[in-house]
Amino acid sequence: MEYTERLPYWRHLNDSEKQLVRQHSNIRRYGRGELIHGGGSDCLGQVMVLSGLTRTYVLSEEGREVTLFRLGEGDCCVLSASCVITQITFDTFMSAEMDCELLIVSSGAFGSLSDSNIYVRCFMYEQATARFSDVMWAMQNVLFRRFDQRLAAFLLEESGRTGSNEIRMTHEQLAQNTSSAREVVARMLKRFASDGLVDVRRGVIRILDAGGLEELL
Amino acid sequence: MEYTERLPYWRHLNDSEKQLVRQHSNIRRYGRGELIHGGGSDCLGQVMVLSGLTRTYVLSEEGREVTLFRLGEGDCCVLSASCVITQITFDTFMSAEMDCELLIVSSGAFGSLSDSNIYVRCFMYEQATARFSDVMWAMQNVLFRRFDQRLAAFLLEESGRTGSNEIRMTHEQLAQNTSSAREVVARMLKRFASDGLVDVRRGVIRILDAGGLEELL
Repeated sequence: MEYTERLPYWRHLNDSEKQLVRQHSNIRRYGRGELIHGGGSDCLGQVMVLSGLTRTYVLSEEGREVTLFRLGEGDCCVLSASCVITQITFDTFMSAEMDCELLIVSSGAFGSLSDSNIYVRCFMYEQATARFSDVMWAMQNVLFRRFDQRLAAFLLEESGRTGSNEIRMTHEQLAQNTSSAREVVARMLKRFASDGLVDVRRGVIRILDAGGLEELL
Repeated sequence: MEYTERLPYWRHLNDSEKQLVRQHSNIRRYGRGELIHGGGSDCLGQVMVLSGLTRTYVLSEEGREVTLFRLGEGDCCVLSASCVITQITFDTFMSAEMDCELLIVSSGAFGSLSDSNIYVRCFMYEQATARFSDVMWAMQNVLFRRFDQRLAAFLLEESGRTGSNEIRMTHEQLAQNTSSAREVVARMLKRFASDGLVDVRRGVIRILDAGGLEELL
């Protein structure tokens, strides 16, 4: 399995540590919408996205979702191994935003590496810190921004990410990604459409006036 | 200056690194309510609280404060040195919740230590990760909990922290610590008082029925 060599901390491992990773990692595939981590299936391990896109979120008691961040090819996540990070005392969920393939190093192996190898430990905390910034962005977004701004920002971000002005997402997905409800998304898209900012047709949102969306920010 | 020896990473420093810390750290005193970090005075350095209590918060464009965490004696903070942590891309404010004394290692010295010394780098990310959990707690508190629960939780927490059932805080301070407004705090305290949970007199809130407050959580 050569994928393990892509792990950012690989070059800091000695031979027996490399062996440990090889023996305790595997590649798993998840279909769009599938739950990857969280809820019952607690401590998955350290994850690296090989292809596709994942979404990490928290859940309120009433089931409301707040998206924290999304990860694409090459991105790593350690929150899915939170059981080995004593500083992390909160639960997150991760699902497949689109079909994806993940390299997963088991929590046990990752925990023992981070105990014995300062570079792995440093990687673990560095990754958590990077996600911290994502979460602060999400938090300030939800707390302080009006919903029209959040939706405009997300459409522009998504268009930038895919390099296309067409966004193929359901209202439900948009709601999850902007920490809102489907009805609210539908209403706001209607307003954007009547303002000539977007065109909504057969489940595809086409950005007609990116400048106009930017002005909302 | 012996205070530097209390730094958690002190024992991992070599002699010249110890020298660097001694030369580039100092002790500062702040009066209650004083701004310690944020706004104009950007990158203070790595902070260790020697005495007193600090409060870290974010500010909305309209000036609304959301408290992220508070730090007491012996606690460290690296967010006040965010300029040396490339993964941290958000701004926080820190103020003196009560008179306090801080040991401050300058950003320059801390940055050069974290570049050259893996243990300091690991400490830096570990500290940021620990604060990450505090922030998640604050975030879920604001997003998902009703205000009566937030206020009850804070009063109980504060009473536990001080070991007294009397809480000496203004409504303004309570509002800041529960991410609310002064008027909302006043109204809720009145309700708590009429329910026999607390007694409010001359700026002192006395918890009469801790069990009753706990039942709100």
